[in-house]
Amino acid sequence: MSRDADCIFCKIVAVEIPAAVVYEDESLLAFLDVSPLAAGHVLVVPQAHYSSLVDLPVEIATQIALVLPRLGRALMEVTQAEGFNVLVNDGAAAGQVVPHLHFHLIPRKTGDGLGYRWNAGSYEGDRAKELAAAYQQALTSHR
Amino acid sequence: MSRDADCIFCKIVAVEIPAAVVYEDESLLAFLDVSPLAAGHVLVVPQAHYSSLVDLPVEIATQIALVLPRLGRALMEVTQAEGFNVLVNDGAAAGQVVPHLHFHLIPRKTGDGLGYRWNAGSYEGDRAKELAAAYQQALTSHR
Repeated sequence: MSRDADCIFCKIVAVEIPAAVVYEDESLLAFLDVSPLAAGHVLVVPQAHYSSLVDLPVEIATQIALVLPRLGRALMEVTQAEGFNVLVNDGAAAGQVVPHLHFHLIPRKTGDGLGYRWNAGSYEGDRAKELAAAYQQALTSHR
Repeated sequence: MSRDADCIFCKIVAVEIPAAVVYEDESLLAFLDVSPLAAGHVLVVPQAHYSSLVDLPVEIATQIALVLPRLGRALMEVTQAEGFNVLVNDGAAAGQVVPHLHFHLIPRKTGDGLGYRWNAGSYEGDRAKELAAAYQQALTSHR
């Protein structure tokens, strides 16, 4: 299994650094974020070191997909939240601090002051059509 | 396929409302957010109406897991972003506006002013251990 010697999440996976483990299987580990945005804030990480979602093997992505809804149900029950965010910060520009892919599950309550900064724009002219066509092209050219 | 008559995303799936479609398969549709946080901001939705990730059938969750990394690669290529966020707002308290589950893919560049409001706290005493145990219990009692 690939590992990065300097990675704090790899050290948690290897039990070299303690963590409050929520869930574990062959490919994933879920534990409480030590600096929670809300009580019960969970991180889900692949046990192997991948920095980005775009490099994640299909088998691990599938396993995350199976576990996220279960963790969401557990979160709602355990934290008595009214909702939750799933968040991936992929890349330093996106706010990724630990360069080991992690899914945040963040319990939410009305008026808690959390959430994404929401400054929506709009598309002019045919810009949206052009961008959609570029996406379709990119998705066709390499799967 | 389940549908909500008043749901704007169900209407987009049914091509009753136009959208700049990025990707489509049997269970999913991806299209450009009409009010983008950044050019190329994509929404991925199940074609059937589910409000929450916690209700999503395994087959659809799996399909999303297969598509998200591909869409992430396409996003990086098309938008020339330096990174991206994957975001689900699950429940009104979490910022969900359209009650049809959707995954945001938001292109990010350094200094763009976007991102999650980050006010990290900490756990006192054994609170993290207790919460982790409660999660484990919740995950064991219903799969």
